Amino acid sequence: MTETPAETPADSHSTHGYIHRKDDYLKRLSRIEGQARGLQRMVSDEKYCIDILTQVSAMTKALESVALGLLEEHLAHCVVEAARSGGPEADIKVKEASDAIARLVRS
Amino acid sequence: MTETPAETPADSHSTHGYIHRKDDYLKRLSRIEGQARGLQRMVSDEKYCIDILTQVSAMTKALESVALGLLEEHLAHCVVEAARSGGPEADIKVKEASDAIARLVRS
Amino acid sequence: MTETPAETPADSHSTHGYIHRKDDYLKRLSRIEGQARGLQRMVSDEKYCIDILTQVSAMTKALESVALGLLEEHLAHCVVEAARSGGPEADIKVKEASDAIARLVRS
Amino acid sequence: MTETPAETPADSHSTHGYIHRKDDYLKRLSRIEGQARGLQRMVSDEKYCIDILTQVSAMTKALESVALGLLEEHLAHCVVEAARSGGPEADIKVKEASDAIARLVRS
Repeated sequence: MTETPAETPADSHSTHGYIHRKDDYLKRLSRIEGQARGLQRMVSDEKYCIDILTQVSAMTKALESVALGLLEEHLAHCVVEAARSGGPEADIKVKEASDAIARLVRS
Repeated sequence: MTETPAETPADSHSTHGYIHRKDDYLKRLSRIEGQARGLQRMVSDEKYCIDILTQVSAMTKALESVALGLLEEHLAHCVVEAARSGGPEADIKVKEASDAIARLVRS
Repeated sequence: MTETPAETPADSHSTHGYIHRKDDYLKRLSRIEGQARGLQRMVSDEKYCIDILTQVSAMTKALESVALGLLEEHLAHCVVEAARSGGPEADIKVKEASDAIARLVRS
Repeated sequence: MTETPAETPADSHSTHGYIHRKDDYLKRLSRIEGQARGLQRMVSDEKYCIDILTQVSAMTKALESVALGLLEEHLAHCVVEAARSGGPEADIKVKEASDAIARLVRS
């Protein structure tokens, strides 16, 4: 993962679904960053493997929940708007969302 | 998730399976922490939802891979040693590992 | 799971997204039914646990792929149509689809 | 998936962990086969996509639960016995179980 992926044409959109809850997402992601630091501390302190695994599962669930929130807002805003404005844009958005869902389900 | 869970009796073990690859795990977890920071930057910069989701999937896969590594080393060391030393300890270890696997599969 | 769930209001829809590929889905589901029978044969013949697990993973992947296909067609048809016809229906459809996605990601 | 995979050397084992609960597994797999038939009926009757997806998730969870059960018994019997009898067999069993776990987590 490169942390700052190249601009995509879609970046030209004026607003994305999640923007109105930006602060909430930032807070959750910052908590997830803290979990990653907590895991490093546990490995450093040679904690018991099973306890580390429990925290990894908690962190995975937190990430998953961020993804599901972003996805719902993406469907509710970007996909619905593309459908309303008509044209081939809706098909592109649906394909793109479906690919993202497949990556989530398989990860 | 509390970042520093209470000591478990298992913490009294002299060594855990992953210890001989501690540096590798610390490096991978620090990269995962960087991914969490990258995601905050993307949300802050109001990047496109689908691009954020792609990075979330990459981060989830990285975490999953850390978990599978820790688990394999746990089986190879803690579980195998408990089996060898006989007694009820092996049953406890197997139950504990199975519960951790169930959490991973379901998360 | 009851095999024939009660009618939902949504059943009143004249067509669903997957209908035009009905035969393809029936074929895939019949193959999955065959996999379930194959697994019973393996257990009956006391095959090796790991070989059974390999087949369970293959079957899970086949099911997942059916789900992702149904979902994509649902977004492309039912959700897009609801968005186009305006009104609160689109919100209901997005919520419903998001809940289904969450169940898939968590299962 | 071929329904009757070739014999593996491991098939020469006299007993596998799940054997003492063979009937329970056969019953669960037969119920899963019924779920696959129920899904075909739903598609045939053109039921609502979201209701079909709900049943797919239920079936996936049932399969997952069979897999976790088989795995736990495999660890408790085959892996623990291999560890006890010493030699390189334990390493092979741990590697094999870890690969099966990875397939489950990623499917």
